[in-house]
Amino acid sequence: MDIHRLTDRLGGLAYGGDYNPEQWHAEVWKQDDELMRRARVNLATVGVFSWALTEPEEGRYDFDWLDSQLDRLHAAGVAVDLATPTASPPPWFTLAHPDALPVRPDGTLLTHGSRDTYCLTAPAYRQAARRIAAALAERYGDHPALALWHVHNEYVTLCSCDHTAAAFRVWLRARHGSLDALNEAWGTAFWSQRYTSWEQILPPRQSQWHRNPGQTLDYSRFWSDETLAAYREQRDAIRAHSDRPVTTNLMLPGYQNLDLWAFGREVDLVSIDHYPTAPGVDAAAQAAFDADRARSLAGGAPWLLMESGTDTVYDGGRILGKEPGDILRHSLAHIARGSEGALFFQWRQSRAGAETWHSAMVPHAGPDSRVFREVTAVGEAVARLGELAGSTVRAEVAVLHDSDAWWAMNADGLPSSELDYLTTLRRAHRALWDAGRTVDFAHPEHDLGRYRLVVAPALFLLTDAGAENLRRYVAAGGTLLVQHFSGLVDERLHARLGGYPAAPLREALGIRVEEHRPLRQDERITLSDGSTAGVWSEALRTEGAETLAAYTHGMLDGGPALTRHAFGSGSGHGWYLSTRLDDTGYAALVGRLLSEAGVSPELPGLPAGVEAVTRHAPDGRRWHLLLNHRAEAVPLPRPGHDLLTDAPLSELSPGACAVLPAH
Amino acid sequence: MDIHRLTDRLGGLAYGGDYNPEQWHAEVWKQDDELMRRARVNLATVGVFSWALTEPEEGRYDFDWLDSQLDRLHAAGVAVDLATPTASPPPWFTLAHPDALPVRPDGTLLTHGSRDTYCLTAPAYRQAARRIAAALAERYGDHPALALWHVHNEYVTLCSCDHTAAAFRVWLRARHGSLDALNEAWGTAFWSQRYTSWEQILPPRQSQWHRNPGQTLDYSRFWSDETLAAYREQRDAIRAHSDRPVTTNLMLPGYQNLDLWAFGREVDLVSIDHYPTAPGVDAAAQAAFDADRARSLAGGAPWLLMESGTDTVYDGGRILGKEPGDILRHSLAHIARGSEGALFFQWRQSRAGAETWHSAMVPHAGPDSRVFREVTAVGEAVARLGELAGSTVRAEVAVLHDSDAWWAMNADGLPSSELDYLTTLRRAHRALWDAGRTVDFAHPEHDLGRYRLVVAPALFLLTDAGAENLRRYVAAGGTLLVQHFSGLVDERLHARLGGYPAAPLREALGIRVEEHRPLRQDERITLSDGSTAGVWSEALRTEGAETLAAYTHGMLDGGPALTRHAFGSGSGHGWYLSTRLDDTGYAALVGRLLSEAGVSPELPGLPAGVEAVTRHAPDGRRWHLLLNHRAEAVPLPRPGHDLLTDAPLSELSPGACAVLPAH
Amino acid sequence: MDIHRLTDRLGGLAYGGDYNPEQWHAEVWKQDDELMRRARVNLATVGVFSWALTEPEEGRYDFDWLDSQLDRLHAAGVAVDLATPTASPPPWFTLAHPDALPVRPDGTLLTHGSRDTYCLTAPAYRQAARRIAAALAERYGDHPALALWHVHNEYVTLCSCDHTAAAFRVWLRARHGSLDALNEAWGTAFWSQRYTSWEQILPPRQSQWHRNPGQTLDYSRFWSDETLAAYREQRDAIRAHSDRPVTTNLMLPGYQNLDLWAFGREVDLVSIDHYPTAPGVDAAAQAAFDADRARSLAGGAPWLLMESGTDTVYDGGRILGKEPGDILRHSLAHIARGSEGALFFQWRQSRAGAETWHSAMVPHAGPDSRVFREVTAVGEAVARLGELAGSTVRAEVAVLHDSDAWWAMNADGLPSSELDYLTTLRRAHRALWDAGRTVDFAHPEHDLGRYRLVVAPALFLLTDAGAENLRRYVAAGGTLLVQHFSGLVDERLHARLGGYPAAPLREALGIRVEEHRPLRQDERITLSDGSTAGVWSEALRTEGAETLAAYTHGMLDGGPALTRHAFGSGSGHGWYLSTRLDDTGYAALVGRLLSEAGVSPELPGLPAGVEAVTRHAPDGRRWHLLLNHRAEAVPLPRPGHDLLTDAPLSELSPGACAVLPAH
Repeated sequence: MDIHRLTDRLGGLAYGGDYNPEQWHAEVWKQDDELMRRARVNLATVGVFSWALTEPEEGRYDFDWLDSQLDRLHAAGVAVDLATPTASPPPWFTLAHPDALPVRPDGTLLTHGSRDTYCLTAPAYRQAARRIAAALAERYGDHPALALWHVHNEYVTLCSCDHTAAAFRVWLRARHGSLDALNEAWGTAFWSQRYTSWEQILPPRQSQWHRNPGQTLDYSRFWSDETLAAYREQRDAIRAHSDRPVTTNLMLPGYQNLDLWAFGREVDLVSIDHYPTAPGVDAAAQAAFDADRARSLAGGAPWLLMESGTDTVYDGGRILGKEPGDILRHSLAHIARGSEGALFFQWRQSRAGAETWHSAMVPHAGPDSRVFREVTAVGEAVARLGELAGSTVRAEVAVLHDSDAWWAMNADGLPSSELDYLTTLRRAHRALWDAGRTVDFAHPEHDLGRYRLVVAPALFLLTDAGAENLRRYVAAGGTLLVQHFSGLVDERLHARLGGYPAAPLREALGIRVEEHRPLRQDERITLSDGSTAGVWSEALRTEGAETLAAYTHGMLDGGPALTRHAFGSGSGHGWYLSTRLDDTGYAALVGRLLSEAGVSPELPGLPAGVEAVTRHAPDGRRWHLLLNHRAEAVPLPRPGHDLLTDAPLSELSPGACAVLPAH
Repeated sequence: MDIHRLTDRLGGLAYGGDYNPEQWHAEVWKQDDELMRRARVNLATVGVFSWALTEPEEGRYDFDWLDSQLDRLHAAGVAVDLATPTASPPPWFTLAHPDALPVRPDGTLLTHGSRDTYCLTAPAYRQAARRIAAALAERYGDHPALALWHVHNEYVTLCSCDHTAAAFRVWLRARHGSLDALNEAWGTAFWSQRYTSWEQILPPRQSQWHRNPGQTLDYSRFWSDETLAAYREQRDAIRAHSDRPVTTNLMLPGYQNLDLWAFGREVDLVSIDHYPTAPGVDAAAQAAFDADRARSLAGGAPWLLMESGTDTVYDGGRILGKEPGDILRHSLAHIARGSEGALFFQWRQSRAGAETWHSAMVPHAGPDSRVFREVTAVGEAVARLGELAGSTVRAEVAVLHDSDAWWAMNADGLPSSELDYLTTLRRAHRALWDAGRTVDFAHPEHDLGRYRLVVAPALFLLTDAGAENLRRYVAAGGTLLVQHFSGLVDERLHARLGGYPAAPLREALGIRVEEHRPLRQDERITLSDGSTAGVWSEALRTEGAETLAAYTHGMLDGGPALTRHAFGSGSGHGWYLSTRLDDTGYAALVGRLLSEAGVSPELPGLPAGVEAVTRHAPDGRRWHLLLNHRAEAVPLPRPGHDLLTDAPLSELSPGACAVLPAH
Repeated sequence: MDIHRLTDRLGGLAYGGDYNPEQWHAEVWKQDDELMRRARVNLATVGVFSWALTEPEEGRYDFDWLDSQLDRLHAAGVAVDLATPTASPPPWFTLAHPDALPVRPDGTLLTHGSRDTYCLTAPAYRQAARRIAAALAERYGDHPALALWHVHNEYVTLCSCDHTAAAFRVWLRARHGSLDALNEAWGTAFWSQRYTSWEQILPPRQSQWHRNPGQTLDYSRFWSDETLAAYREQRDAIRAHSDRPVTTNLMLPGYQNLDLWAFGREVDLVSIDHYPTAPGVDAAAQAAFDADRARSLAGGAPWLLMESGTDTVYDGGRILGKEPGDILRHSLAHIARGSEGALFFQWRQSRAGAETWHSAMVPHAGPDSRVFREVTAVGEAVARLGELAGSTVRAEVAVLHDSDAWWAMNADGLPSSELDYLTTLRRAHRALWDAGRTVDFAHPEHDLGRYRLVVAPALFLLTDAGAENLRRYVAAGGTLLVQHFSGLVDERLHARLGGYPAAPLREALGIRVEEHRPLRQDERITLSDGSTAGVWSEALRTEGAETLAAYTHGMLDGGPALTRHAFGSGSGHGWYLSTRLDDTGYAALVGRLLSEAGVSPELPGLPAGVEAVTRHAPDGRRWHLLLNHRAEAVPLPRPGHDLLTDAPLSELSPGACAVLPAH
């Protein structure tokens, strides 16, 4: 795997961040050399926002500044992750190609003066992006500083312009084959939407009422495929001149415009950006959530935390600082779950521009600062973890995650606005994280045989193949929990008829859902086992399953709420939870499932609030990475030698971390 | 009346709903025949969203599918309410006529991919609508299945495009005669808005500050008239080929873009769509509110509930299900108040498209479902009520309702954003409904002589003629309650000078309002009689009236809040309520008014929470329709024979309904 | 000063308001003459919204109506403040010059039908405005009624159109000299925003993410300068024909699009509009806030309250009435702080148009009304205050205020959305007002030597010169309080490096701020002195200062929160407050500062809640203006003769005012 080439090159884990020397002057560069050395920086991402500098007018390149920066970094022993600057075209580009500007669904034209001012489907943009990627690769493909290629930056934009419409039609032809098939898929018989020529089809734009759900879902799929194509074009242009690994830094934001599974298959190594949105233990849980996603996208292979913040928590309208020790804790949280290092955006805090108040490794206050002192200490610690490179993480539990299911839940007209895909996914992961288990994410059509427990919290859309795969998983002895509002539609967003969810899954679960019964805002209900719930309920009947908890309200009184179904020849059980349990009840349910499925914590004996993950080397070596989120010291079950401090350790202080080679 | 022709044709009340066979296939149609028979369906609305199918390219019609559906329905004994499909032009239409797309006041262009993608004033749209209406009428005008014409669907769109501007100018010339008159009416001397040519006049579009109130009011009137003209064009095109009655299904949403009184005069029979926005007894009160409006629009004649939902309550961000029994209760609530049946949108729940999650008579789960079982039972019950056809409802109380007053309250710059027309209207109706009285709605210029009590909750705008009519009503012995913020402006939105409200009304009420004193958000005040109030207060003085309750706060301390004025030669009394009483105090006031005006419930002896309405046949027969909204059983004042069950009845179970022929 | 020419002409203070006779007819004008006489009106603002009438088609003027109105007013003894009507172009203008319509940043075009439908940078608009100003001046420059010119009305619009882009570029060239300098200033190296030609530069328009802060700040500066240029053009056109003083009525709204200091230098006399947004004592504090700003803009000279409301408090979604006595109290509040009179918008309440519900001197109810009776009484009182004309107000405390700092805080991406400039400025003023001290506003680069205490509540942006000025002020013996989030950026919005705030200020304060630590929403913290705070905290260290209160939470525990630094050769002290104290603690801090700095109330012996300001005549006479905001009577420290009533006074009734010549 290409991640090995990177760690081999670095001689251990990566440490560093985005480096934008073009914002500064020579005297600062000199100080940078000195400070990077102190902080043990060994990898710098260069050039992310340098298009205007590198190509000051269309087709004319100026590489001098970049030559000298790469040479300087190389001389300083810092390897370079060289970015193509295509996330931020220069002002000249938007004036030369006004048709390449992005347009919102309501027709609003977006202009430059920020970043990401381009439409990904505009031919002029794609050509310009390929051209500069090729030019960079041609010039720096063999540069001795070069360790990694970093295509673009956080592919997260959307567009509704006429180029997009044209590209969407091409994609739709390929997917559906014929207009008849498209009309059938989108259900255009409703509301008189039948298309009689391809030219009539648009991306979703502002309209009077609900948009067609099939159209919005296909637009999401199209956009992801188009983005991936744009990535591949740059990657291939680079590969023609360079043999270094190529990646793009995936943003994992609160919305979803990429099929990350597909990206995972196309990058040479998976890299992600991670920024918490809450402080304290919530930030730790968020780090685990994203790190587990990154590892799963990489198919279990090591990956790289490409961006994080030294002192930044985006808490709604506020940018909170981090707590002392967070830089280490957050870096370790990612490394524990498979990251081969920890990188930050950015090295030096901007003194001007849109992100002046985004934290950095060297803050405005300069090196005489808490932040830089912690950065230096963490650099020391990471440098001691070189032996972990190449080791991997194992999980016995999987949470099912599918972009299609997420996108499908963006449809207009769903029965409740409180059914949020990401919130539901996070909640399932959090309950498992709180219970001290390591979790993989998996696609519903993946082979799930290796997992003792599979949780499907939010598969509103589930294909025939996915439903059959889940049925097989239970039939073969697996334990599966399916949660409410799952399996309602197929891949064309067509409702399942005769009872939800999709038939093969109904068979595995031994139930039939007849009606959705959304609860009123803030309505609470109590189940027969005393647990409480909200948001949602369902009228269902058992068809083989046993009722573990029943409803006690209204027309559902006495009807099943939580069911379990022994299914198949083995020990398989299909569980169905038809409501949204409150935290306590949900934690109890997850605990019961873990127990019944026989999933033990890897490091028994630790109290709740101490995070533990084990990395496994191919040669059998293992390391326990521990993070104490508790406010008091915790004695270790078995004392060990802590790699972070190169010292023996028998107790974890409050907030402390440790990396203990296993015996 | 044409409603009689419909019920004669059906041999009783109507039962059924929108039927969209184009969403399904032949094997489903076959099942439809069987299930409709089981559910006693006798009327199906066909073709509402079929434009794309019926006219697949401009000017070429394909009637084969519709021929076979109408023949099939006829063979199955189901009469057809045939819709013109003009609410949803096909994609080809918007590409052929881009100038016919709707435009928002801020210039946003709306595109297809939803429904209602047209501007009602665009000549190309109007022509296409007339053409397809005529083509349908020519082909099906005498079809044996045809019982009713259903023009369009829910006229609820608006537009601000240039076609709209041109049509608005034509309308304004006709209304005002001259630019001078328009300038005077709109008060264009203020803010330098004087128009010196007709071409300068626009519909209200996005502007810097407040829009001109006269302009926005006239735009609302214009749009309603234009919509009515569009309806009339289709109606007349149909009448040229068919003698069956013609209607359009009126949506009664939370906003108002039609003068429903005017529509009531142009349709052959009034039909409405009704969807509750809250569950339980609130839904029942909403049904009564809309049903009483429908009957009043029909001038007291029977009418038709054209659309409702079997399992749908639009509760903010959630689509709640209905409770068991609601299908019967809600159907009866409308029939009790004059509907000649109960129809649903739609027969079979869509498996794809924008309303996949909207309920239907046959849900996704299929006929083996609570919903379909209830649908079948209600079909049986409605079939037993055939003798009610043609009977009517009588009321002794009227609530005044005027589109102009509603539209006028959309003006920018009013003294309080908490003065909502519809909320205030609903509140007055609800208090009377809670008190067990049947209520008509009336226009302030209607002859009110037949009512013992008239309530004017929200007549911000009141014409000279309206004010004089109310004065005459009281002078002739009527009891009138006028509520705060009434009679402030005339039909041009010009303020009444010298004291509010309009002079003739001041005379009848014996008061003079000098100042508005809006209350702060969440401020509560207490009146001298202990009642509490919020939102609004007024500085007034009595000029003949007696003070029944006085203010006790601030500068209003001791001043009149609620007054009563004996006026005229008879027993007439003009009451004025200058604040917004809380629920308890308002209910007490309404009770006192009913008592003083001598309005008795039609069926004495029933406790609160049992709804009772009487339908009267021309030959003197009467039926009491009863709905028990209480959680306990209620003994009947006089046992009877319940038509719904064809069995004797002495007690109403919780939630139960009954139809009792009166002795 | 020109304000003296006005009061000389009027023979005392001004009283009256906007007079729009074009909304009415001859019989009303006749009543106006009589009512103005009763109300002692001596100044009327005429013509503000009369463009459509005065120039009914482009280039053709109709002055007849205005001739007769001015003659009539003159005959009635009412002087005229003649307005150029350029705030509201007529409909014909926008049709003739569609390129002169305003455009929002998202591209939305604003149309007529309201007011202010113009782009200030459109050449056609500027030419039309100069032309009508010149025409009015030519005709009325020597009219005997004319006392004052009133250019435009409330310059508060913005635009993002292409004319604006062109003008912005011209301004930027002048400011920055070269593209290199602009690129450096705006930090365009970040996000690849480097401009390579002037044509690439736009005003801030809708974009994907954060806008460039330098661009938004320069746009604000540009817009203010452009507005000032537009004002100057009209002023100069008038001066060519008339020697009467020229002003424009400055709106002081919750946002800021003008550098009011600059306007103060260009008008012949400062005039403002004032409308409270809360009732009671809050309204009184707001009057003081705006009046103190107006006086400061005038450099301490008398000024004029050009608009206020007789019965209008804009309380969010409600327009509250005022309390009895408020017309006098609010008028006196302004006169006490230097206004040479009190004027209202408008004389007669509109009976139609967008401001029908805005209060007036003659309300809809007519002269038989509380409002008109109060208006008359206040007219009497103001007439007795003629001897105050020309006297001024003195303050020993200044609050620093800078448009640049305000604009800079509109930048995207700041660390907390709860840091609002205006709120913070108001809060500092309010604490000083509550403490009974008179307050000037000053620019950070003003000479501050005359003040005992200077408060800098919100100088996020502070120039090198400003920081040096503040350092000098403390060094010379002044007491300075700097509050959190100050001195972070220079005039180019470049962050201060090496620790905040700007170095010279750090020296004066004896501290170094290293990190911002925004608090979570609703988080409360407690300092070591028991005071509580929220919103914000900072990690700082003392460098010479003493810690007066320390933090007690989290990583800041024990660190300085409030510091004091004895600095310079004199008695100077630099105080730094690094958090947002709650009201009680902030009041205590302000009290301590006033005490340590030796700032006494001008009229000792009055309890809190009695407002007292002294006006000083050049000849040494003084008048104490007193307003009792308490609910009980307050004995005067020394009885006197009240000018308002021409009677002796020893006690102030609740809500009462007095004007007492000082001995």
